[in-house]
Amino acid sequence: MSLQNIQKKILRTRCLDSKGLIAKITHICSQHELNILKNDEFVDRLTNCFFMRTELEGVFDDNTLLADLDATLPEGSIRELNDIHRNRIVVLVTKEAHCLGDLLMKSIYGGLHMEIAAVISNHATLHTLVDRFEIPFHLISHKGLTREQHDLKIITKIDQYQADYVVLAKYMRFLTPAFVQHYPNQVINIHHSFLPAFIGARPYHQAYERGVKIIGATAHYVNENIDQGPIILQDVINVDHTYSTEDMICAGRDVEKNVLSHALYHILAQQVFVHGNRTVIL
Amino acid sequence: MSLQNIQKKILRTRCLDSKGLIAKITHICSQHELNILKNDEFVDRLTNCFFMRTELEGVFDDNTLLADLDATLPEGSIRELNDIHRNRIVVLVTKEAHCLGDLLMKSIYGGLHMEIAAVISNHATLHTLVDRFEIPFHLISHKGLTREQHDLKIITKIDQYQADYVVLAKYMRFLTPAFVQHYPNQVINIHHSFLPAFIGARPYHQAYERGVKIIGATAHYVNENIDQGPIILQDVINVDHTYSTEDMICAGRDVEKNVLSHALYHILAQQVFVHGNRTVIL
Amino acid sequence: MSLQNIQKKILRTRCLDSKGLIAKITHICSQHELNILKNDEFVDRLTNCFFMRTELEGVFDDNTLLADLDATLPEGSIRELNDIHRNRIVVLVTKEAHCLGDLLMKSIYGGLHMEIAAVISNHATLHTLVDRFEIPFHLISHKGLTREQHDLKIITKIDQYQADYVVLAKYMRFLTPAFVQHYPNQVINIHHSFLPAFIGARPYHQAYERGVKIIGATAHYVNENIDQGPIILQDVINVDHTYSTEDMICAGRDVEKNVLSHALYHILAQQVFVHGNRTVIL
Amino acid sequence: MSLQNIQKKILRTRCLDSKGLIAKITHICSQHELNILKNDEFVDRLTNCFFMRTELEGVFDDNTLLADLDATLPEGSIRELNDIHRNRIVVLVTKEAHCLGDLLMKSIYGGLHMEIAAVISNHATLHTLVDRFEIPFHLISHKGLTREQHDLKIITKIDQYQADYVVLAKYMRFLTPAFVQHYPNQVINIHHSFLPAFIGARPYHQAYERGVKIIGATAHYVNENIDQGPIILQDVINVDHTYSTEDMICAGRDVEKNVLSHALYHILAQQVFVHGNRTVIL
Repeated sequence: MSLQNIQKKILRTRCLDSKGLIAKITHICSQHELNILKNDEFVDRLTNCFFMRTELEGVFDDNTLLADLDATLPEGSIRELNDIHRNRIVVLVTKEAHCLGDLLMKSIYGGLHMEIAAVISNHATLHTLVDRFEIPFHLISHKGLTREQHDLKIITKIDQYQADYVVLAKYMRFLTPAFVQHYPNQVINIHHSFLPAFIGARPYHQAYERGVKIIGATAHYVNENIDQGPIILQDVINVDHTYSTEDMICAGRDVEKNVLSHALYHILAQQVFVHGNRTVIL
Repeated sequence: MSLQNIQKKILRTRCLDSKGLIAKITHICSQHELNILKNDEFVDRLTNCFFMRTELEGVFDDNTLLADLDATLPEGSIRELNDIHRNRIVVLVTKEAHCLGDLLMKSIYGGLHMEIAAVISNHATLHTLVDRFEIPFHLISHKGLTREQHDLKIITKIDQYQADYVVLAKYMRFLTPAFVQHYPNQVINIHHSFLPAFIGARPYHQAYERGVKIIGATAHYVNENIDQGPIILQDVINVDHTYSTEDMICAGRDVEKNVLSHALYHILAQQVFVHGNRTVIL
Repeated sequence: MSLQNIQKKILRTRCLDSKGLIAKITHICSQHELNILKNDEFVDRLTNCFFMRTELEGVFDDNTLLADLDATLPEGSIRELNDIHRNRIVVLVTKEAHCLGDLLMKSIYGGLHMEIAAVISNHATLHTLVDRFEIPFHLISHKGLTREQHDLKIITKIDQYQADYVVLAKYMRFLTPAFVQHYPNQVINIHHSFLPAFIGARPYHQAYERGVKIIGATAHYVNENIDQGPIILQDVINVDHTYSTEDMICAGRDVEKNVLSHALYHILAQQVFVHGNRTVIL
Repeated sequence: MSLQNIQKKILRTRCLDSKGLIAKITHICSQHELNILKNDEFVDRLTNCFFMRTELEGVFDDNTLLADLDATLPEGSIRELNDIHRNRIVVLVTKEAHCLGDLLMKSIYGGLHMEIAAVISNHATLHTLVDRFEIPFHLISHKGLTREQHDLKIITKIDQYQADYVVLAKYMRFLTPAFVQHYPNQVINIHHSFLPAFIGARPYHQAYERGVKIIGATAHYVNENIDQGPIILQDVINVDHTYSTEDMICAGRDVEKNVLSHALYHILAQQVFVHGNRTVIL
């Protein structure tokens, strides 16, 4: 066995819970002489669903390992064995620079293990920012197009880049069901409120009207119900009576960009499981 | 002038904003040889409304001072000159002990400048806790009564105690409009969610269903719309996929009691102004 | 097998890490037909130390289970199998009521799975508070005694109550090495600063002097070095230039009591491992 | 009076407290027919020092206004009347990109009302990042120079740009007293710990060793005592036993950049007063 063949991979398992699951899975890993660097599991008692994320190190025979797992795990189990590689991301934006800027900085200078393959927008506003980082920028205007036509053009462009994930970094349009279904659990959005408060448009205006003392941001997977997909991460900051709507918008920017990039961090590390309308993060 | 006559009082002013208001008010205070210990003001630009809270020290001639202010301030101004005294509170509870326990501890052992005059409940559960602190406990059951009849009995009891404020420390019933109107801006509630998320019953169950990553509590004045009165204070804590609804309820208790008692702290210090459906805290 | 014999226990394991440990331990649990309700593990890469906390359910044959584990685990391993029972606590206080009040409320009305067996103080200040909850209070004055003599009297009293843990709820005296050694990893203190900032006396005065914008509290195990034992939990709140030292003391009380009771929560749930001067919380 | 002449300015006053100060100052503003948009004041009771920040709008006769103030205020008072303009900043960095990237983004795309005039470093690492934003980058190596010689070269370069403030955005060298004295209260540093914990080098390593459960960052003015200048802002994040030193370094980056840019926000808005070793932020 040469050192060159030693790899790290991540095994993700989900299935119905039953007695002895951890013993069975870790026993198979032992038989394959794989070392467990880190192991986390969770059982959702309400649904009796078992989740496990295992960081493995050793010489992998993927097919045999997966076959051994399949022979042991209950029927209907899902197990994935993934390399640790730099994911490819396509970012959709409209006019606001702060989330995109943070993603660009972190993808190039460290912080997020990903490559921004391209940025797509329905406005030209952020073209020069993207150019600064020598990344392709595509202006796909929605003018004169139906929502479906526009989304189709974007899908076509995204697919040229073979993206692992699509990140909506303050993309201010609702996506069509066709778009969402094309990328199941692959589209991540940052919503500028503490969901489920202030769903929909102009959440800071809604927050001002309600007189809240805390505002927030929510990173979530996009599904077919607007702002109702599985929540990945949320964070908040305090505000008070001196904050105008405009002040809230300004103050919220740092929260938005932090929440989005931390949520991506968990996704890129393969820590997030979507479980109905909830997420399990191991 | 004898030292015995030196007092501290709080002047609270609200009126339409106009040029020179701070100068005029503080000039009158100077003429009365009152020292300003602390002064805070705020102008709400949207409504052009001016708010000021002034801590004064000196020998007060209340009538002359207020007359001088009235002669100077724009018509329709509201100004109050209040002593700093220990407020009297009546607390309404149902079965949960944590908020009540914190209020009892702080009213007796320090932290809140108030006296709990009595505790009223529709259940006997917390009778012994209240007895420990030698405070009157009144069981007013709702059984066999209409909502209006029940509230009327409670109002009658509260009014015997001449309470400055009524605090709902996890009182799990909605109040009738008659009750709310009887105590305008005097009823403070703690709601166990981050309003406006999860209005109404069983907010932790709603939070669990939605899969949120943060839960919170909101202290607010009670008005005629359920959970929609002016917000005084909010706070949150992080939760994750391992939290059952029951875990959220447990974890939320410390947030609830802290938010309620901090909100009361601001009210007792006469720092809170109700401004439409918002609060200004100076 | 009758249902009456089904119990829940917690298995805590720590040993040098080696390949296959999780598989081995969970396999033994499977062989004993014990169901794993919850399992958490951690490997400290710097020291190569393995920690695991396993919540088990089933019919236990303790001796055989432990023998099987001993036969499998590397030499020098530590494993404990504990019932889930209500721990007995003795609380030491001086004059401040807030932490003690919170512990009394939570031990009786829910929140902490413990029984306060007795409260000991070097002052009589809190006698009436403890009386309210019908718990023994012992005044052991330090006057005229050496530090060693005083601690010895306290130890003697504590040991009458067969306490699982000793909690210093704002006990404002330093303990002698003899005391600390008598209760290894059993004495928990709340220090009113964000350690290691402001070790020693009057931390809020130190914080004021330094002009910090955040103050905090730290729950830690007591060892022979003052304020330097393993940290269990910390929390902070924001302050600003308007806070006097006295304001910081007031504002800090809620943080202190929350941090102390949350730290106790983890300890009572057997989640805390002391690892050198650090804690692992599973 | 033409509308073109209407300006906004900020009046900053500090002096010994005395009765009637607010009345006197605001009365002078009224006499000049200046409207007070926002007014904040603070009296430090320990030093009897009065601070006031007043946002004024109107037609300014600066000399007369200041003369009127001087005639009224107690001797030794400091008062400044400042335009609201975009400040010029020179940033010093070493090799880490995150704080610099955030400042570049915010100075160009909004969030901080400032212009980055130049970036100076003792390493070439960040040259290309600065180039992306078309801002001058100066490599001033410390090799072969004494600390004094190196600082002198940097001072000479900074002074070419007539900077209002010098920002140390993870500049990993200590500055000489000559440097600090050349820019009194104009040099802002971000320290990667919750000061006064972990002064000096490698604070995350120190934090790991101590086993803290919270890490933080501190923005402060630089004075002649290392990491002991007046604190402007601090923030923290939770960590746990799973964090290696490297994990803390990664997690700390977002806190560092947020704290630095929020501190600059307050400074650029002329809200910060240095008061001994403390700051007053109005």
